[in-house]
Amino acid sequence: MRLLVATIWLVMALHAEPTLSLMPAPARVSLDKGKLTIDASFQVRITGHTDRHLQDAVTRFVVRLSRQTGIPMAGGGARPVLTIDCRGASPAWPVLGEDESYRLDIASTGALLSAATVTGALRGLETFSQLTAPDADSFSVPALHIEDHPRFSWRGLSLDVSRHWMPMPVLERNIDAMAAVKMNVFHWHLSDDQGFRVESKVFPKLHQLGSDGKFYTQAEVRRLIAYAAERGVRVVPEFDIPGHTSSWLAGYPELASAPGPFQIERKWGIFEPTLDPTRQEVYTFLDDFIGEMAALFPDPYFHIGGDEVLDTEWKRNPAIQEFCKKKGLNSTGELHAYFNKRVHALVAKHGKQMIGWDEVLQPGMPNDIVIQSWRGQQSLADAARKGYRGILSFGYYLDHLNPASFHYQIDPLGGAAKRLNEREAALILGGEACMWTEYVTEETVDSRLWPRAAAIAERLWSPANVTDVDSMYRRLASVSRWLDWTGVEHRSGYQHMLDRLAGGSPAPALRVLADVVEPLGIDQRQAARSYSRDIPLNRLVDAAQPESETVRLLGEAINRLVANPGVHREEAEEIRLAMSQWSANDRRLHPILAANVLLAEASPLSEDLSKAGSIGLRALQYLESGEPAPENWLQDQRLSLTQMEKPRAEVELAAVRPVKALLEALSRSGTKSDQSGGSRPNH
Amino acid sequence: MRLLVATIWLVMALHAEPTLSLMPAPARVSLDKGKLTIDASFQVRITGHTDRHLQDAVTRFVVRLSRQTGIPMAGGGARPVLTIDCRGASPAWPVLGEDESYRLDIASTGALLSAATVTGALRGLETFSQLTAPDADSFSVPALHIEDHPRFSWRGLSLDVSRHWMPMPVLERNIDAMAAVKMNVFHWHLSDDQGFRVESKVFPKLHQLGSDGKFYTQAEVRRLIAYAAERGVRVVPEFDIPGHTSSWLAGYPELASAPGPFQIERKWGIFEPTLDPTRQEVYTFLDDFIGEMAALFPDPYFHIGGDEVLDTEWKRNPAIQEFCKKKGLNSTGELHAYFNKRVHALVAKHGKQMIGWDEVLQPGMPNDIVIQSWRGQQSLADAARKGYRGILSFGYYLDHLNPASFHYQIDPLGGAAKRLNEREAALILGGEACMWTEYVTEETVDSRLWPRAAAIAERLWSPANVTDVDSMYRRLASVSRWLDWTGVEHRSGYQHMLDRLAGGSPAPALRVLADVVEPLGIDQRQAARSYSRDIPLNRLVDAAQPESETVRLLGEAINRLVANPGVHREEAEEIRLAMSQWSANDRRLHPILAANVLLAEASPLSEDLSKAGSIGLRALQYLESGEPAPENWLQDQRLSLTQMEKPRAEVELAAVRPVKALLEALSRSGTKSDQSGGSRPNH
Repeated sequence: MRLLVATIWLVMALHAEPTLSLMPAPARVSLDKGKLTIDASFQVRITGHTDRHLQDAVTRFVVRLSRQTGIPMAGGGARPVLTIDCRGASPAWPVLGEDESYRLDIASTGALLSAATVTGALRGLETFSQLTAPDADSFSVPALHIEDHPRFSWRGLSLDVSRHWMPMPVLERNIDAMAAVKMNVFHWHLSDDQGFRVESKVFPKLHQLGSDGKFYTQAEVRRLIAYAAERGVRVVPEFDIPGHTSSWLAGYPELASAPGPFQIERKWGIFEPTLDPTRQEVYTFLDDFIGEMAALFPDPYFHIGGDEVLDTEWKRNPAIQEFCKKKGLNSTGELHAYFNKRVHALVAKHGKQMIGWDEVLQPGMPNDIVIQSWRGQQSLADAARKGYRGILSFGYYLDHLNPASFHYQIDPLGGAAKRLNEREAALILGGEACMWTEYVTEETVDSRLWPRAAAIAERLWSPANVTDVDSMYRRLASVSRWLDWTGVEHRSGYQHMLDRLAGGSPAPALRVLADVVEPLGIDQRQAARSYSRDIPLNRLVDAAQPESETVRLLGEAINRLVANPGVHREEAEEIRLAMSQWSANDRRLHPILAANVLLAEASPLSEDLSKAGSIGLRALQYLESGEPAPENWLQDQRLSLTQMEKPRAEVELAAVRPVKALLEALSRSGTKSDQSGGSRPNH
Repeated sequence: MRLLVATIWLVMALHAEPTLSLMPAPARVSLDKGKLTIDASFQVRITGHTDRHLQDAVTRFVVRLSRQTGIPMAGGGARPVLTIDCRGASPAWPVLGEDESYRLDIASTGALLSAATVTGALRGLETFSQLTAPDADSFSVPALHIEDHPRFSWRGLSLDVSRHWMPMPVLERNIDAMAAVKMNVFHWHLSDDQGFRVESKVFPKLHQLGSDGKFYTQAEVRRLIAYAAERGVRVVPEFDIPGHTSSWLAGYPELASAPGPFQIERKWGIFEPTLDPTRQEVYTFLDDFIGEMAALFPDPYFHIGGDEVLDTEWKRNPAIQEFCKKKGLNSTGELHAYFNKRVHALVAKHGKQMIGWDEVLQPGMPNDIVIQSWRGQQSLADAARKGYRGILSFGYYLDHLNPASFHYQIDPLGGAAKRLNEREAALILGGEACMWTEYVTEETVDSRLWPRAAAIAERLWSPANVTDVDSMYRRLASVSRWLDWTGVEHRSGYQHMLDRLAGGSPAPALRVLADVVEPLGIDQRQAARSYSRDIPLNRLVDAAQPESETVRLLGEAINRLVANPGVHREEAEEIRLAMSQWSANDRRLHPILAANVLLAEASPLSEDLSKAGSIGLRALQYLESGEPAPENWLQDQRLSLTQMEKPRAEVELAAVRPVKALLEALSRSGTKSDQSGGSRPNH
């Protein structure tokens, strides 16, 4: 019987899905008939357990619902519209493995949100918000039943605030966005070669000499932790040692493996300055430092980094070499392991569990550490087999600017982890999206995170079989808009940057171009030119959005048209309009580009966009007329488009993709070998 | 000799003007050759007078410049790029008539900003910011000399926070925007029938029973005054008496002219509840209240409203009638004058000068009051002839949603004031843009204020002969974008509202429609349907921007094309693209509108937009081919377009204007009487 019910749920969920814009998709949905109207009489009643935490969350929820609908909600209705039945409190700070499940029963007469914990209720409120939409009669949520719980208990976002400083409001609005898609760990990468970003009262030269004045006070840290906790988000600090420590050594050169002096790095890369793992004073320092930070950050997990340790200084320092010999450490790898074990003891002494990047998985490490894998799924599977818990970040590096679909297909239990047994698989706690900020500023970070991070959030929350990419994109488009006007600025900041690039004057033609280019990721940008912290990130590549929605939607229209050219007149019209606009765009844009130092580099892209538009228009004519395209014309255009695919100005011309798709459709529908066709002018 | 110099300046200014996007236009500009580069080495030196006020302003200026250019500015250059030479401090609080002049000398080697006061330096810094733009080589400001000073000393913006509550961040960002266009008075309309919005410690029932909990604490008031003062903006409070006082009487019914009880009004209109001007206890109350507020607000001016006093309650109350008889007051107008004189004495007792709306100009009023005219330029001129100072708001009511050009042509010394002699004209202190918020929420207020308020700011600051409307619009487009990404959200909030209207899904077709409709102003909206505070302002009319930039730019392109059809191929292409997009738009938009309660009302507009696009396409064909359009076809289309001009869904279809312009051009170029033309299908 239980099996039958489950089957019905699943079938209904699959049928129902296309009408809901939920992200992450809930574990189980069944749609009912009807809907619950949301109007000015909307009010919430809390039954069962209540506390300040829940009440504040409800207040925020109603305020946002009011903004979302535009309806002033003064309450005062005769009866509650939404009842929250919460069975107990959440701990003072959110903890790993807390019950985050909730159940949402919505009927035309009212809604009931039930949860075991306040955190579960928070997750359910986010679902309710996402369900609220205008329909033909009113604002409403559909009548339905949702039973929902996360697949993984660790659903994180890691943010590097060292390479580029991120002010408090940036962090706050991104934590709002995380909570909106049910992410629950904010991994705060607080130190690196380019900056030490938190006030230390015990070792004040850390922030005084290591931050250029850009650091969070301890009061701000506490405020952010509280802010996150109110939203059911844990804050895990990372202090990356023993490498990535130039900023520490600026103030405390005596901790280094080389004589110094040291200074904050202004460039990007992996640098030599490294803590000396052979001297007691380093461990005494770390003992006091970890003690201070362990008291500041309530979360039981403490990230010590441990990645990309260059051993140049270790090899160069005779005292270190001597130490290794004496201790029987046969490689710098073993020395690193020695260091990690001692750090582990300090972390444990201060009541925390240690996390590190996959390099810290060395022979003999205690089994209570957590491995964060950035190098591959294999290392995570290996760790699990050895009994270590792990979280996946490989495949979730958002700074590489891959499409959402790329991240979406990476499963913490996929790849090498597929072959884990149940006990081993249970050690995979979840994953973390990562944002390294070499090419990301406070102005652009939102657009580098969102909406793509939401696809990862879904992978980590939703059942493993929720994998339909088209459905993901449809819902992503919706949640992206919703996130933008509730806080993060990935969409609204875009137009701002274009306005600025254009020097303030109206430049719709610049938007046309920017809408169809995609910025290169970190690897390609660092190859493209020499960057440092002082190079402004204020060009087209920085304004452009990682994944062109315009191109994606056009691609979908082309697919529909090609599948049935006779029927989709509307699609044909849409494609024609886009191609006409592109075709005419360079004439309008050229004078703007020529007069602007930041935009001059975009001239070849603009010319190519117009060429691509013209090719697309001609291809559409062939497709619609049914007249076969001349083979040599096709070949010429393919060649042109391939040349256009080469990145320039650190962006790719994504507009090429749909035009190529049109040509491919023509090829499939047959061609003719008419020589004259090749010389036909494109208009 | 002085005359000659002035002439040269003026000539150069006229020539130079098209290359600068300054708003308000400075009194005098002369362009030099060359430019001053703005890069990461940018730094400011203060010579002469310095104080915290100026230093904070410079810090804010550099932060904004860094955002504006995207360049991280750490200073550290070898020499200052901008030197500020300030001759003296400004008073603790900005005062009327302070010297706001400044001089800006920019050469390729550096810039010098000289000013008599810190406030003058602030104005100059805003000019410097507006001058900064990307050019073909770098970011730079042009080499030039500016001598600038305001034409009027009172350049205000009045904001009603009673009809709709405006949270602190809304006020702060709008004060930033005011300062950016050199406005210097924030007139805070703090009480009205619908809400009493400031905390009173003396009479706490005012805010407790009169505000629904939405009021500014005295700490917040002090904070806002300080915030404004830092930006050279005065804050003048208005407490509107004796009418418009329902919210006062909710807590203190004993002050009323009728028995009560009273409650906060939730609807819009003019209401009867009025203070009783015949009882001493009312004056005792006002004495204490004005004393409290006079201490809270440092500005020497105190606005007592005084407009739209209904005398129904006065006429109905026998005790009041008896009082009038006894005192020899022969009309309720005389009773109102009696009240105003006593209030004037109280205001003066607490060290303030009284301002009131033009109704307070009654026989026998002391000459030290200031008249704010909302009813016409005549009353201001009359007041000046009688020796009263005045400020103009007639013609500056932004809530009527007139185009910027409408407000721009209203001059405080124009109309009836033209015939004033010099001494009388000097009594006209300036003007104030007004925003009444019956149909404006915290979400839409920015778009109802900006960019149009900047045109009024220019009228009040710039020389009287700066009147070129095309130049104004060109510069307004630029300053509008600049204002948006420095704080106010009139542009970025627009897309948010459209996203929400569309229920979150991508709906470019909705944007196409919204871009070419214009919302109706207060008079027409109140006629359209019955509104109250509880009716959400979340429809197309609320999202749409008061003046369609798309339509304006298209109109300009049509003008150029029509002037010379053979030459402007680019314009023809632009017009064709727009008309094609409109023509195809309803097919794409219709399904969205039909499924959405908020948008269903827009269906006829969407249909008409497509019709208008088709007409425009056909008209363009005639125009380009040189073939005369059939007279009866022209007549039919004119009729169609005229029908489309009728507002629906509380918006006007502004797209009709450029299509009409095309038809008019066709009419002028001659027609033919070919009957068959009339039945030609539009595509």
